[in-house]
Amino acid sequence: MNSPETFIATYHCKASDRSEAEEMALAISIEQSVEMPPDAVPSTARHSIAEVVSLVEKDQQIWRTEIRFPGSTVDGDPLQLLNILFGNTSLKRGVRLVDVDNQILNTILPGPQFGIKGIRNLVGVQNRALSCTALKPIGLSPDELAQFAGKFAAGGIDLIKDDHGLLNQQSSPFRDRVKAVVTAIREGEQKSGKRTLYFPNITGSALAMAERFNIAADSGADGVMILPHLSGLSVMQELARKHRLPIMAHPAFAGAHVIAEDHGIAPGMLFGKLWKSFGADAAVYPNSGGRFSFSTEQVQEINRCCRQTNGEFPPIFPVLGGGIQRSNLDKWVDLYEKDTVFLIGGSLYEHPDGPESATREFQQKLESYV
Amino acid sequence: MNSPETFIATYHCKASDRSEAEEMALAISIEQSVEMPPDAVPSTARHSIAEVVSLVEKDQQIWRTEIRFPGSTVDGDPLQLLNILFGNTSLKRGVRLVDVDNQILNTILPGPQFGIKGIRNLVGVQNRALSCTALKPIGLSPDELAQFAGKFAAGGIDLIKDDHGLLNQQSSPFRDRVKAVVTAIREGEQKSGKRTLYFPNITGSALAMAERFNIAADSGADGVMILPHLSGLSVMQELARKHRLPIMAHPAFAGAHVIAEDHGIAPGMLFGKLWKSFGADAAVYPNSGGRFSFSTEQVQEINRCCRQTNGEFPPIFPVLGGGIQRSNLDKWVDLYEKDTVFLIGGSLYEHPDGPESATREFQQKLESYV
Repeated sequence: MNSPETFIATYHCKASDRSEAEEMALAISIEQSVEMPPDAVPSTARHSIAEVVSLVEKDQQIWRTEIRFPGSTVDGDPLQLLNILFGNTSLKRGVRLVDVDNQILNTILPGPQFGIKGIRNLVGVQNRALSCTALKPIGLSPDELAQFAGKFAAGGIDLIKDDHGLLNQQSSPFRDRVKAVVTAIREGEQKSGKRTLYFPNITGSALAMAERFNIAADSGADGVMILPHLSGLSVMQELARKHRLPIMAHPAFAGAHVIAEDHGIAPGMLFGKLWKSFGADAAVYPNSGGRFSFSTEQVQEINRCCRQTNGEFPPIFPVLGGGIQRSNLDKWVDLYEKDTVFLIGGSLYEHPDGPESATREFQQKLESYV
Repeated sequence: MNSPETFIATYHCKASDRSEAEEMALAISIEQSVEMPPDAVPSTARHSIAEVVSLVEKDQQIWRTEIRFPGSTVDGDPLQLLNILFGNTSLKRGVRLVDVDNQILNTILPGPQFGIKGIRNLVGVQNRALSCTALKPIGLSPDELAQFAGKFAAGGIDLIKDDHGLLNQQSSPFRDRVKAVVTAIREGEQKSGKRTLYFPNITGSALAMAERFNIAADSGADGVMILPHLSGLSVMQELARKHRLPIMAHPAFAGAHVIAEDHGIAPGMLFGKLWKSFGADAAVYPNSGGRFSFSTEQVQEINRCCRQTNGEFPPIFPVLGGGIQRSNLDKWVDLYEKDTVFLIGGSLYEHPDGPESATREFQQKLESYV
């Protein structure tokens, strides 16, 4: 699991002219490798200095620069790769990480173990978009959450995940919740005649997550959900290596990296390429037109990054939440097409005829777009 | 370690008038608690809904709102506290987390185990600012890094930390580096006649960090450095609870949270209050006037947050890096006063008479400001 000899990372720099952009690119190459004046670097470490390979004006005042890093600065450590890509540079305005070579990702990270294909096989649906809902709110007991889950399953929903705020609170301890929900879903499936997959939220300390991952698998859950920007991305890749359950990644606490226009990490790079490399099989992020900050173009770009293969890594599912209702599904299915999971929450809970009917109605609509 | 019955978090919302601000505050209270339309919340979970307590215009178009959360939504889980404070809201523009009650922090987090007082006692310096430098660059061997360390110690430096890019690369494996550097520092102390503390960088997977923490302690290191936004903040609080070595937190990969003006987390809240609560005894962050993005006013505010007591938690050291040179130290000591650690890097490595003389010169200057 050694790193390749070198790898290239790509950044966008906001600069008013070429000389300012050159200065920024050079600063990134030094900051992210030796972090000291190049003249002061001892001869035995000069091989560690990164190098600016290209610099072109991409849009007005946005300069695209490729920087070549020595693989020995990373040496197979997933967190050190993030550190080299964007550690201190995260503290600078006007610099955005937009890409990195597939090869280094393929070499030191597990990638998705299931991906779109694996999740489709588990749920038994090949030719249409998938539906997903969230069990909520915090405060309900395992039995109350399980009742909802059973109704969603009876209505034929494809995926159910925990709300990202459900961890291991006294009101709904993880082990009890998973058992109750799995049982209710398996009963609901008898009525719908199809599979419903359950992804409980295992986020917690690394130790708790390893334990909850096993509880989930042993209790018959079909996947797990992780909040990698709270747990740390390293835990996600470790659990992916077990190759036991698909992983759905959720963007809680990740927003600051992606929502500014001119610094941070490009949303497709983070939610698509990096999460995929760290082992996510499905990536939750906010749809446009809802209560969050992305435009439709940005969502399309993140979708594209999820659905790409990256070298050896297969495509993963975009899971779009926010602003999706039974009433406007046409528009979103048209826009985002079939390799999408549509996450629908409030709109199923609020239906006057109850969650089972609401789900059936949503599901029939989704199935009509084959 | 139960949570208090309720706790209050404070946010700044960017809004053009009161009605927009009211809408934003209400949206935070729902998003960060039940995350569904309040009318759809079942009666048995209505106690989970957070409540807007106050809303005042603080500056032009910046509204300060206090939101009261039920403690049962957190239930003693440190990551769930972050999730409740800023999980999904991190994905919204115009909202900034600026404060949270001391009580909930004091109840569920360890806080600093050493703080300013503990570090001063370890280094034996009570009445002046402290000096710190970083061992670098990546690519040097343990022996080469140890040679530098020995010279810095002989010159009388107070603290030495690893560069944040030194983890466990083949060029400098963690265990070998710590042993070599500790030995060299203890020799250097013979010449200087004073203590020099060493903080190796233990960042890695949770398992690797627990192991490296013990290696550091058993090898005679005086503290550890952690990159909590790469490792996950949870590991830091777990290691703090061991009460064995002081912890220096470093901001790699944390920048996006703090550098925008109108979203994310206020820098003093993150680097001061939150890091302190999660167990940091010293907080590294970028000085103004250097190559990073903070103003002097922002640095003063972060310093203030580090040096405050927060309920039961004692003050911690701000460690200011970037732009500090032997030649401009006067200015910074005047500005930031004695409860500060000044991190000086390149300027010691570049000195024509070598690192030992450079350190001695810097140290004498620092000691003259008592």
